[in-house]
Amino acid sequence: MRGTVLHAPGDVRVEDRDKPTIEQPTDAVIRLVAACVCGSDLWPYRGVEAVERPTPMGHEYVGVVEEVGSSVTTVRAGQFVVGSFFASDNTCEICRAGYQTHCVQRQPGAPTGAQSEYARVPLADGTLVATPGMPDEDLIPSLLTASDVLGTGWFAAVAAEAGPGKTVAVVGDGAVGLLGVLAARQLGAERIIAVSRHADRQALAREFGATDIITERGDAGVARIKELTDGLGAHSVIEAVGTQESMLQAIGSARPGGHVGYVGVNHDVTLPGEQLFFSGVHLHGGPAPVRRFLPELIDLIWSRQIDPGRVFDLTLSLEDAAEGYRAMDERRAIKVLLRP
Amino acid sequence: MRGTVLHAPGDVRVEDRDKPTIEQPTDAVIRLVAACVCGSDLWPYRGVEAVERPTPMGHEYVGVVEEVGSSVTTVRAGQFVVGSFFASDNTCEICRAGYQTHCVQRQPGAPTGAQSEYARVPLADGTLVATPGMPDEDLIPSLLTASDVLGTGWFAAVAAEAGPGKTVAVVGDGAVGLLGVLAARQLGAERIIAVSRHADRQALAREFGATDIITERGDAGVARIKELTDGLGAHSVIEAVGTQESMLQAIGSARPGGHVGYVGVNHDVTLPGEQLFFSGVHLHGGPAPVRRFLPELIDLIWSRQIDPGRVFDLTLSLEDAAEGYRAMDERRAIKVLLRP
Repeated sequence: MRGTVLHAPGDVRVEDRDKPTIEQPTDAVIRLVAACVCGSDLWPYRGVEAVERPTPMGHEYVGVVEEVGSSVTTVRAGQFVVGSFFASDNTCEICRAGYQTHCVQRQPGAPTGAQSEYARVPLADGTLVATPGMPDEDLIPSLLTASDVLGTGWFAAVAAEAGPGKTVAVVGDGAVGLLGVLAARQLGAERIIAVSRHADRQALAREFGATDIITERGDAGVARIKELTDGLGAHSVIEAVGTQESMLQAIGSARPGGHVGYVGVNHDVTLPGEQLFFSGVHLHGGPAPVRRFLPELIDLIWSRQIDPGRVFDLTLSLEDAAEGYRAMDERRAIKVLLRP
Repeated sequence: MRGTVLHAPGDVRVEDRDKPTIEQPTDAVIRLVAACVCGSDLWPYRGVEAVERPTPMGHEYVGVVEEVGSSVTTVRAGQFVVGSFFASDNTCEICRAGYQTHCVQRQPGAPTGAQSEYARVPLADGTLVATPGMPDEDLIPSLLTASDVLGTGWFAAVAAEAGPGKTVAVVGDGAVGLLGVLAARQLGAERIIAVSRHADRQALAREFGATDIITERGDAGVARIKELTDGLGAHSVIEAVGTQESMLQAIGSARPGGHVGYVGVNHDVTLPGEQLFFSGVHLHGGPAPVRRFLPELIDLIWSRQIDPGRVFDLTLSLEDAAEGYRAMDERRAIKVLLRP
């Protein structure tokens, strides 16, 4: 089969690879219908994370089950499935509390890589969710977002306690931030302030439900959000970048007692304890337990209540994965969809 | 009148001072019945916070209203009152959300000092709560705790979402930590793990409801708490110290999706963002909005359902305030009550 491998920073190749097989009785093998390039794939692509050996890439996926292991009971061959980027048993105490990305058995959701024709998914019963049937072609991009970016933006909005009567600020205009806007709107937020300097992203933010757009970052961003909220700050802030500046903007933009939901992976961030203490905010985030939200998100997409697939502004053949990485890296594309 | 003044680190004196008067129509002047020395008073006493000028001390108080300003309507002369260490209007949007320590009008609750015979309390309507009548003598220490340490421990337990079915770990065996144990028990926690190396504090923790005592701190403390919780960590962790070690112990001791309620003032703490991110915990704390809990806490004390006044293990005359500071500083006393 064909699959994407990162050999070194900037060196992405689509190659002939062994088709994955069932290794554990809890595994499934799926045929990928669509996959995509994640913002987090850019960390090793840019050399920010080390690339120690050729690495199969991709962890966001939708596909059709090809084969299941002998102990798998909840999905079967021929079903269309969506999975999370982390595999989880969905039965341990942590999973049952809704934190499947911290499952006691957690492991990569697509260890053989999902930017590929086939993928092996461990713990298939706990990781995969079947759709009600074979989806219409136009639903596939949206179902694909549920696998990671939508689920992550949704978790951020839930962690930020976005809801009726709330003003929600969203720091970050990547796919996750934009889908955080969509989630906040869907959860009933009254006002949604998006932070973006790019016309295309601003337009999509408005389409997803943003009521206000600001361009200021850092301290100026905090000041602008306070100005828009009677000096108090937002009730809820979604942080979808993960830098020192964006974290401090998020914390500073929330009112005392407000909630910051942060999902940008915190590389090289240190939070000043005294500032956080006197801010009086709630802080919650981390790797999103996408699996918690999959049934609800699939339902919202299937019934066409939301259209998160709008974040894909570039669709390429799997063979052109390298161009997908370049487009994301150069910010020419918000989010790239790959079709095997 | 007599009042306590800190002149320099280690130099506490009880002196003749002007009796405070009504300055604003929203003020009250109260005659102190009891006051106490706070752990936070030790910061300037020890020179950790600068002492730039002679400073009247004390911010925890119960007393009888002597006089009120012309616009005060909810308390009147002759009433026994409990106040919070921060004055708040209790009507702004932040107060109504339960964050009175961040009130848009926030200011010190006893700017003239409460380790004293009389004190001026600003924003009396929003800050003071009258008891149902004159309390029995034995209730006075408990009512005094409501003013700060009980309210702070209670907030930490609420922020940590202590409740039925939960295992709660408490980092810190000062008065706040011990009253965090009491709060967790009162909120219905199933199991309460207290961290203490002092026999007297361990005994009081058990009396307040601790089911397990551990002595390990830092990484060893994290390991011990995980060992006691099937490797998962506590559902709820109360942090009542405020050092780098105690904050990391608290965060490390909570399970993914668990809640850390932190009330130890974070001096010189920096939180590693990546570690916090991958912990998946909720973090909430800051200066406790004691005013939120005062009506409920007064009721629990008045009806003798809780006896938080047990934290006072040394009672002195106001004239002996300096000895009270020494006893706290040398950890000979958990908490010192001063009687004017």
